[in-house]
Amino acid sequence: MNHFNQKIHFLLFLSIFCLMTLSLNAQNTMKSSDEDAFFIKNIYKTTLTKGQGYDWLKDLATIGGRLSGSPQSFAAIEFTKQMMDTLGMDTVWLQPCIVPHWVRGDKEQVRIVGSKKMGTIELKALALGNSIGTGQKGITAEIVEVNSLDEAEKLGKAGKLRGKIVFYNRPMDNTQINTFAAYGGAVDQRVWGASKVGNYGAVAALVRSMTTRLDDIPHTGVTVYEEGVRKIPTVAISTNDAELLSRLTTEEVVRVFIRTTCKNLSPKLSYNVVGEIKGSEYPDEILLVGGHLDSWDVGDGVHDDGAGCVQSMDVIHVLKQLNYRPKRTLRCVMFMNEENGQAGSKVYTETSNDNKEFHLFAIESDRGGFTPRGFTCDGDKTIFKEKFQKLYAWSPLLEPYGITLAKGGSGADISRLKSQKGLLLGLKPDSQRYFDYHHTAIDLMDTVNKRELQLGAAAMASLIYLVDKYGLGD
Amino acid sequence: MNHFNQKIHFLLFLSIFCLMTLSLNAQNTMKSSDEDAFFIKNIYKTTLTKGQGYDWLKDLATIGGRLSGSPQSFAAIEFTKQMMDTLGMDTVWLQPCIVPHWVRGDKEQVRIVGSKKMGTIELKALALGNSIGTGQKGITAEIVEVNSLDEAEKLGKAGKLRGKIVFYNRPMDNTQINTFAAYGGAVDQRVWGASKVGNYGAVAALVRSMTTRLDDIPHTGVTVYEEGVRKIPTVAISTNDAELLSRLTTEEVVRVFIRTTCKNLSPKLSYNVVGEIKGSEYPDEILLVGGHLDSWDVGDGVHDDGAGCVQSMDVIHVLKQLNYRPKRTLRCVMFMNEENGQAGSKVYTETSNDNKEFHLFAIESDRGGFTPRGFTCDGDKTIFKEKFQKLYAWSPLLEPYGITLAKGGSGADISRLKSQKGLLLGLKPDSQRYFDYHHTAIDLMDTVNKRELQLGAAAMASLIYLVDKYGLGD
Repeated sequence: MNHFNQKIHFLLFLSIFCLMTLSLNAQNTMKSSDEDAFFIKNIYKTTLTKGQGYDWLKDLATIGGRLSGSPQSFAAIEFTKQMMDTLGMDTVWLQPCIVPHWVRGDKEQVRIVGSKKMGTIELKALALGNSIGTGQKGITAEIVEVNSLDEAEKLGKAGKLRGKIVFYNRPMDNTQINTFAAYGGAVDQRVWGASKVGNYGAVAALVRSMTTRLDDIPHTGVTVYEEGVRKIPTVAISTNDAELLSRLTTEEVVRVFIRTTCKNLSPKLSYNVVGEIKGSEYPDEILLVGGHLDSWDVGDGVHDDGAGCVQSMDVIHVLKQLNYRPKRTLRCVMFMNEENGQAGSKVYTETSNDNKEFHLFAIESDRGGFTPRGFTCDGDKTIFKEKFQKLYAWSPLLEPYGITLAKGGSGADISRLKSQKGLLLGLKPDSQRYFDYHHTAIDLMDTVNKRELQLGAAAMASLIYLVDKYGLGD
Repeated sequence: MNHFNQKIHFLLFLSIFCLMTLSLNAQNTMKSSDEDAFFIKNIYKTTLTKGQGYDWLKDLATIGGRLSGSPQSFAAIEFTKQMMDTLGMDTVWLQPCIVPHWVRGDKEQVRIVGSKKMGTIELKALALGNSIGTGQKGITAEIVEVNSLDEAEKLGKAGKLRGKIVFYNRPMDNTQINTFAAYGGAVDQRVWGASKVGNYGAVAALVRSMTTRLDDIPHTGVTVYEEGVRKIPTVAISTNDAELLSRLTTEEVVRVFIRTTCKNLSPKLSYNVVGEIKGSEYPDEILLVGGHLDSWDVGDGVHDDGAGCVQSMDVIHVLKQLNYRPKRTLRCVMFMNEENGQAGSKVYTETSNDNKEFHLFAIESDRGGFTPRGFTCDGDKTIFKEKFQKLYAWSPLLEPYGITLAKGGSGADISRLKSQKGLLLGLKPDSQRYFDYHHTAIDLMDTVNKRELQLGAAAMASLIYLVDKYGLGD
């Protein structure tokens, strides 16, 4: 045998060895993939037949809106703790956090006054969360309509907002397919509108409601006063009323009366509700599912975010029903105060960092209880590519359920965990109906479809199962 | 230059030529693809801002249930013809067809009588379409529960159904993700249940309603009497009542009273409503969009199938808004009598075949007005692969809108066109809510979301645009 032949033989041997290895791996993959497909099918089956989320949500809805610091928020903490106590987790605890305590006060009065054309017209309005009130007597002033913060600032610098009510009227772009993108393109007016014009002498800010619809439903939501700014009251009006007001300002000088008695009381001690099952093999690798327990005070906060809370508890419930014993530590977290401060998220993350914990994986559900279409995935750039690829390789297992994985934001409450360098996901439901109800008095149980809600929980449980079983390493 | 060098030069030249050709083609493709992406974006934009489907559907809903032969069905024919007349099509016409004329008669009375445990209990019930009535005095008989046609047949052959009411109680499998698959797995009981047991002496058939939910809403739908079978009355009861009845039969002999006065009157002359824009280059290649105009008599038939009708008209409306001049002939068809006979579909197809027409492409929307997830595609096996591949190549243009293309059934009204060897598509919306409303008194306007409905029309218009522009050939 000459050297050349030896080499050929060696290469042949190597090739055959490689092929065998590949083939064995393929068989392993195939086997575990079948097993996983079967388990995921069972997760869906169990969630659709024995899921408790919908019934929990019905009970939660009877409590009413759960704004941080409100009696309803404490009832909700007690209720979800009791429900988690029934799930057979190793520990369920309340994690203290100090939350702002804003109250709406009397029903808002907002009306066009002394219109030559239309006389007095009541507008459907909701004060924005965190806003100061107008005082008992209210405020009457002339309307100046703007379409952006920039435009408001220019007018302010030109001295044209002194004594005026600034009316932010840029609509959400309803030609966007993803309504969250449309929301992102308009919500700056609600969050920063008042703050932007306070120092220019404006006396109040009106904001067109954040919705793709033309209707009579005002949408509340948080406003933020920047450091050092003169605070002025701010109120959302319905989109139909915004259209009316806008038309009228093209025809005459329009004056509006606003009376709100909302205010911030002293901050209060509140809680996140946390449940945990200790992992049997890798207890230091935490997998989190969660939503936020607080909601706005109007409506029952079922889509925002009762849905995310009960789906997260259903993930635990369903895995328990299937006698699944996690290798890694599972945590179910109901965050407090997402809407107006995120105190719960901050405390949770700080405590976790102090305890040198590692969240390998976290899923937040906070985009409504509609048919899930997938997850958006985020993570520190040093780890994202590798861990996302690992996750992405499981896509075929999720495909039968219409679930896709894509890069994108996770959620307001878990995003602070990014520094722990795990993978962070946001459940992505169909977004078409969300902004019909978001932050309104009609975010009520009759807008929730049981199967749609359950399918979200099943999608979350399926990913938790896969990451728990295999991790996100090599 | 030696021969070898010549060859090299020739190969080099050939390679460069090929690369250039490829590159030019790529540029062409890129250009037309960009243009198409832009046009499709405009279709979506126009549908979401200027679509008329939702308003048409509101008007259609005010007419009420539109069962074939009913006054409401004629009002709907008149209404949709008038609406189509506003769309600037070349021709709008009524195509005559003879339809069955079944009427429900008095409100159904169905009750458990003389139960030792529970006394008398009224059941929520709807007679099935095409069923005969019980006669004025009604029928009282003992219940025999079965879970399948086969089980019923076995009991029938054993002489155990004589004088009995057969109660079909196999539920729709609510663990199926696609609820249409669950429907397909249970609906044989409704369609053939009565027919199967008539000749064995059964006096009536009760059928568990076709829905994934447990609720108090009975679902009607068609029943069919096979040739030569003894006709017996048949009625659907709500799923909650089916559960109750089933429990009770395990505890005692249960007798049920049924009184229905439904009947078939003489067949009537009715119509399909058809609108057409003649193609400028290939008038002999027809592209069809359609739904069915008839509905059941209870509810307002908004999802089944008012939605499909107004979406189809919106396809025309939106292309007109965009000043799109079709190369091929566009037809918008409101089929009559899909629910209980498909007389409209039969006449349409026969006439088309007699006229030697060629439907290159047809889309039917008849699965509710929910967020579209894609299309299922069908066609004669001699052409399917090639034409589907051509269509499938456009998938990247549809991906931004969450639209996928897959093999599957098209729809009851267009499937007869298969012999013309074009491609037949069914719009596939999210299926989770459909069977909450299907064939019930709650198929009402408040269950329709405007954006979801509009997105379906936009998806249909996008495919019509592509097929019109490029055809489905090489």
